[in-house]
Amino acid sequence: MHTEQIIGSTSFAQKIRIGVLGFGGLGQAAAKVLAPKQEMILVAAADNKGYAYATEGLNAQKCITTYQSQGSVGYLEPFGTLTNHSIADLIESNQPVDGYFLALPNLPNDFIATVTKQFIDSGWRGVLVDAIKRTSAVEQLLTLKEELQTAGITYMTGCGATPGLLTAAAAIAAQSYAEIHQVVITFGVGIANWEAYRATIREDIAHMPGYNVETARAMTDAEVEALLDKTNGVLTLENMEHADDIMLELAGICSRDRVTVGGVVDTRNPKKPLSTNVKITGRTFEGKISTHTFTLGDETSMAANVCGPAFGYLKAGIKLHQRGIHGIFTAAEIMPQFVK
Amino acid sequence: MHTEQIIGSTSFAQKIRIGVLGFGGLGQAAAKVLAPKQEMILVAAADNKGYAYATEGLNAQKCITTYQSQGSVGYLEPFGTLTNHSIADLIESNQPVDGYFLALPNLPNDFIATVTKQFIDSGWRGVLVDAIKRTSAVEQLLTLKEELQTAGITYMTGCGATPGLLTAAAAIAAQSYAEIHQVVITFGVGIANWEAYRATIREDIAHMPGYNVETARAMTDAEVEALLDKTNGVLTLENMEHADDIMLELAGICSRDRVTVGGVVDTRNPKKPLSTNVKITGRTFEGKISTHTFTLGDETSMAANVCGPAFGYLKAGIKLHQRGIHGIFTAAEIMPQFVK
Repeated sequence: MHTEQIIGSTSFAQKIRIGVLGFGGLGQAAAKVLAPKQEMILVAAADNKGYAYATEGLNAQKCITTYQSQGSVGYLEPFGTLTNHSIADLIESNQPVDGYFLALPNLPNDFIATVTKQFIDSGWRGVLVDAIKRTSAVEQLLTLKEELQTAGITYMTGCGATPGLLTAAAAIAAQSYAEIHQVVITFGVGIANWEAYRATIREDIAHMPGYNVETARAMTDAEVEALLDKTNGVLTLENMEHADDIMLELAGICSRDRVTVGGVVDTRNPKKPLSTNVKITGRTFEGKISTHTFTLGDETSMAANVCGPAFGYLKAGIKLHQRGIHGIFTAAEIMPQFVK
Repeated sequence: MHTEQIIGSTSFAQKIRIGVLGFGGLGQAAAKVLAPKQEMILVAAADNKGYAYATEGLNAQKCITTYQSQGSVGYLEPFGTLTNHSIADLIESNQPVDGYFLALPNLPNDFIATVTKQFIDSGWRGVLVDAIKRTSAVEQLLTLKEELQTAGITYMTGCGATPGLLTAAAAIAAQSYAEIHQVVITFGVGIANWEAYRATIREDIAHMPGYNVETARAMTDAEVEALLDKTNGVLTLENMEHADDIMLELAGICSRDRVTVGGVVDTRNPKKPLSTNVKITGRTFEGKISTHTFTLGDETSMAANVCGPAFGYLKAGIKLHQRGIHGIFTAAEIMPQFVK
């Protein structure tokens, strides 16, 4: 629907050609975010049953309709390909893509690292960005630093909302202080219907006491539904394993044990149960203890706060890549670039 | 006092050697901020009557005491030099300095650009950072971009609080939105005694109706006092010419007319008259209008919120410089690096 705007004024050569890997709730939102952009164009999309590629740009709405009605973007005519190795096949197709947004569920916990290795092995050069959540998943990616450098890939990790937008705000806020005592991230998410974000909700459940990534992943939709029934659709999460901690530690801001992440997810109401915020407490050079607060507007959705930053970091990654700067970077060390 | 900590564990070679130009309220605060740092060392300080240089590091408290009791750091024994061309003479002395913080009053409006040209002409290579306020002053610096590149200087402009910390927070916040409608910066400053920040207060007065940079600069202390008496020590400032606007425009976030800056300065009370904040209003890809808010803790002083970011950007500038990236950058495009 918006795609006509893309296939408009500016020449394709100048646009950043984007691939979106994963086409669940997050991938679909990413396609919608890209649709009106002048500086980026969606050329590839993949889910676990197929992929679609079009040099002149994919129509986001058609991809979404196809996925929702037929179960895979691979059914998209005439651009789709059905395959059980969609990501590998898309990479091997050698179609020109400047950057990929890995809108993939992080279950199993090493899935994104495994996909990254496929990119490294393929000889593809470009920018990868993720909106990964867990510290352990980011740690796996960090071990690939040298391989990414050698491969000529610029990888931007932890570039969603938390980690991502809120981690970056914390990194900015930290500048006022001589020492950081505490970074507390509290998010509120409201979604009308959990089924629109099945993987994300399972990821959240995996953070709850008595669950882990494997057990959450293995849950049937009916089991998720039953769990949500018990809590009136609300998930309350505390002391989550979120990579904001390692990212702020790597940026030299504070040790990871000073960073905590928790939140409340209402799966039956688009209204946020609380305003998402990050509080940064520290000591100034004068010895004063104080707290800076960054609060997201309640009307901004999880999708807006994840996909917007992801593409902002992807654009920043493209500039690094053009300068020959490869390897892995986090949202806490690079300023995202606004995408028009 | 803190200098003993500096002349401690880490070897000098690894520390970033810092010069502070201007030794009024801001320059003195900068020296205090640097004192406990492990990664940076204050090696040079200059005011309009002299300069001091010490390879092994200047003692911040001794510099401040000397300046306050004798009127210039040039009196500091044995490191001081008295001269009416202190900045030029310090540059020409060819002492090794990795980066300078230009803690200079921006009156006249082209003063910082003039100093920058001295650096360009001198053959010195390194990082310059300013906490400049006015759009027109930043515009002057932007015209020097190519000269800075050729000279091998990495210049970080607008790296104080506003512009600086708050502009960067706005750049981060903008990522959630498809379009930015408005960025509103409102600052509260409380200082116990305006005489500690004479140049800064004159800069503020210059923003008031009926004043400009020349008339404000020409005011005697008695005239400033008389003006403050009329308002019970409070300056209320609206629609100020602040470079946050051009910086957000350059970063591609919104046109400058969508950015407004105002504030209240209480010159007789260290308590802030209001909490400094920036509000970023935009439209998400879903068509929702919302506002993110970044609010500074009331206990953080202007000095903490200016000098902390300035050195954070200076450290980021050093990394750019090491990669051979020269020219001019703003606080809205580079992530500051936390200085330990």
